[in-house]
Amino acid sequence: MKKYGFILWLTGLSGAGKTTLTQGLECELRKRGCLIEILDGDVVRTNLSHGLGYSQEDRNTNIRRIGFVANLLSRNGIGVIVAAISPYREVRDELRETTNNFIEVYVNAPLAVCEMRDVKGLYAKARSGEIKGLTGIDDPYEEPINPDIVCYSSQETIVESITKVTTFLEQENYI
Amino acid sequence: MKKYGFILWLTGLSGAGKTTLTQGLECELRKRGCLIEILDGDVVRTNLSHGLGYSQEDRNTNIRRIGFVANLLSRNGIGVIVAAISPYREVRDELRETTNNFIEVYVNAPLAVCEMRDVKGLYAKARSGEIKGLTGIDDPYEEPINPDIVCYSSQETIVESITKVTTFLEQENYI
Repeated sequence: MKKYGFILWLTGLSGAGKTTLTQGLECELRKRGCLIEILDGDVVRTNLSHGLGYSQEDRNTNIRRIGFVANLLSRNGIGVIVAAISPYREVRDELRETTNNFIEVYVNAPLAVCEMRDVKGLYAKARSGEIKGLTGIDDPYEEPINPDIVCYSSQETIVESITKVTTFLEQENYI
Repeated sequence: MKKYGFILWLTGLSGAGKTTLTQGLECELRKRGCLIEILDGDVVRTNLSHGLGYSQEDRNTNIRRIGFVANLLSRNGIGVIVAAISPYREVRDELRETTNNFIEVYVNAPLAVCEMRDVKGLYAKARSGEIKGLTGIDDPYEEPINPDIVCYSSQETIVESITKVTTFLEQENYI
């Protein structure tokens, strides 16, 4: 039986390719007639979490808020794609239990690759000491132990990554 | 042509009957086959706005967050019912402009009636000085100037109020 709504939760380092994969998935899933909503970590932070910082507690509060909103959408039949570093395993595991059809997608790229890409210039700033608490540099990233899907963005093409996700969604009767 | 999603934004004093009307509308609209999601001001405050207080700025931030979430749902075809005092006109008017199919429902009951009901015991606490900043007592409530619907909860039955809202939704092609 077809499942009702889902949350593709893309976790990974800054620069791992979460946004690129999000955009590709959005396009592909819309083409297939799915209702899709994107929750980007940075955008949600602006709208729901202004005033929160980057401590473990504040990061987790932000992630729980994204989860709350994602769940409202998912339980109404919407396919939600979340792109958020979400560095702490405990909160991701909590969301798996508390939200509707949570699917953990680990966007896995080596730190060296993310740092070379440095799309937002954050790694350079962290290395020069201009910013503190960047995940992967001086703040932890706890890898998923048992993610539903792993996309190796430095070793596979974007089409291969998208196909991995859509194949999973098909096999599990989400689409 | 049928409109896609809507936000029934119930504004009014504490005790005016927003929650009662919300429950009645939820039941009636679900019976008609609508996808309905409830955003209760207090519940959203717990999940999205923990740490915010009751200053004008904090109240408005909370209302904008509810509006952000309501808009995500509404633009995906969901009927959203928001029950929140939302005392400031400016932010309600802002949401009318920035969200998908915003419908202002003024749940209008005289302060004396709300205070007599005192469902949550807040008015007694405000009168005794135990709490400060209760809307209608020592914090402002700015009435809607041109609401889409007014329900006079102390003069009409709940069925009459529900019918007012559903008639509006029918006439405007929301349902």
